[in-house]
Amino acid sequence: MKVFIEPIGKLVNQFAKLPGVGMKTAQRFAYKVINMTDKEAEEFADAIISAKKNVHYCRICGNFSEGDVCDVCKLRSDEVICVVKEPKDVIAIEKLNEFDGVYHVLHGTISPMQGIGPDDINIKGLLKRIQGGNVKEVIMATNPDVEGEATAMYIGSLLKPLGIKVTRLAHGLPIGTDLEYADEVSLARAFVDRKTI
Amino acid sequence: MKVFIEPIGKLVNQFAKLPGVGMKTAQRFAYKVINMTDKEAEEFADAIISAKKNVHYCRICGNFSEGDVCDVCKLRSDEVICVVKEPKDVIAIEKLNEFDGVYHVLHGTISPMQGIGPDDINIKGLLKRIQGGNVKEVIMATNPDVEGEATAMYIGSLLKPLGIKVTRLAHGLPIGTDLEYADEVSLARAFVDRKTI
Repeated sequence: MKVFIEPIGKLVNQFAKLPGVGMKTAQRFAYKVINMTDKEAEEFADAIISAKKNVHYCRICGNFSEGDVCDVCKLRSDEVICVVKEPKDVIAIEKLNEFDGVYHVLHGTISPMQGIGPDDINIKGLLKRIQGGNVKEVIMATNPDVEGEATAMYIGSLLKPLGIKVTRLAHGLPIGTDLEYADEVSLARAFVDRKTI
Repeated sequence: MKVFIEPIGKLVNQFAKLPGVGMKTAQRFAYKVINMTDKEAEEFADAIISAKKNVHYCRICGNFSEGDVCDVCKLRSDEVICVVKEPKDVIAIEKLNEFDGVYHVLHGTISPMQGIGPDDINIKGLLKRIQGGNVKEVIMATNPDVEGEATAMYIGSLLKPLGIKVTRLAHGLPIGTDLEYADEVSLARAFVDRKTI
C-alpha cells in the first residue's frame, strides 16, 4: 500500500525541492494546498508560472527585471555602482532605503574550489559600464566570506588603475550584540577597523 | 521604488500563505522557483492544480482518495476501524506498517469552544458503517488533547451499547526519552497506566 495517493505524493515531492523543506514540512504544505479553494490553488500555480515567465535579468545590471532594463537602471544616476553577488542581495539593500545608486549583479563570486573563475561571473559587464565614463565609485558589497573577499580584491585591482574609487562595506560588530556573543572574526575586525570618537 | 518586481512579489505572497512560512522564507522559495527550468516550474504548478483537482475524499471512510472509494476501504477487512481526526493522521499510521484494518476520518473533533458539536464531524458515517454488522472493534486514535479525548469518550458512549469493543491508543512516556524531560501529564499517565512486568 502506498502511503500517499499519487497526486499528493507528487505535490509533496515538489514542495520538498524548496530550500530547507523536508518531507514533513512538504506534507504540511501539500495539505494546505488541498484545503485551498480551486481559485486559491489556481492563483498559486499561476504565480509560479508567471514568476518563471515574466522575471528576466536587466541587460545593464543583471538584476531581476520585468523588462529589458530594470527600473533602478532606468531611473537612477550611475555615478555610484554597488556590486553584489546575487539579485536577492539587491533586495536586501533596497529595503534599507539608504542607497540611491545603481547595482551590478555578478551572479556568483570567484571560487577556485568550485572552479568558478573571473570569466564565469559578470565582471566584463561591469568593466563595460565603467568605460562609459560616468562612474565615480564602485562599492564592493559581496559577502564577507572567502569568495566574497577574493572577488572584491580582484575587481578592486582591475578598477583602481582606471582611477575609479573602490570601496568595501565595513565589517565589525553587529549593532545590538554583546561583545561576549560576537564571533571572533568580527570582533577582531572591529579592533583592526576601530575609529577615533 | 518597490522592493520586489510584481511577479516576484505575487509569488512571495503565495508562498507566505503556507503554514509556518514567513516573508524571508517565502522569498527564498520564490528565488528557487525563478532559478528552476521552465519545465520544473511547470511541473510544480501542475502538481498544485492536479492535487487540488484529483484528491477527493473516500465515500466510505473520508480519507484522501483518487476515486470514489479509497484503496484501503477496497482492499482490507472492515472488522477493525481506526477513528482519526484528519486524513494526515491516516498517513502517520500507515507509515508504521502495523495496522491492517480500515480507517474512519472524522474531519474534526468535538470542540464546544469553537462551536463544533457531534453533528459537525463525521460521526453519522461511522454509525452507519457499524450498522453493517461486520465491525468488531473501533480504535479511537484522536489526538491526546482535550478535544480528542472528549470525542473519543463521546463516540465510545455511543458504540458500547451496540456491543462494539471500543479501545483508545495508550498514553505514557515516549520511547527513548529521559524521565526528567518527559512532560508532567505524560509522566502522570504513565504511572496510572503502569503494567506488571
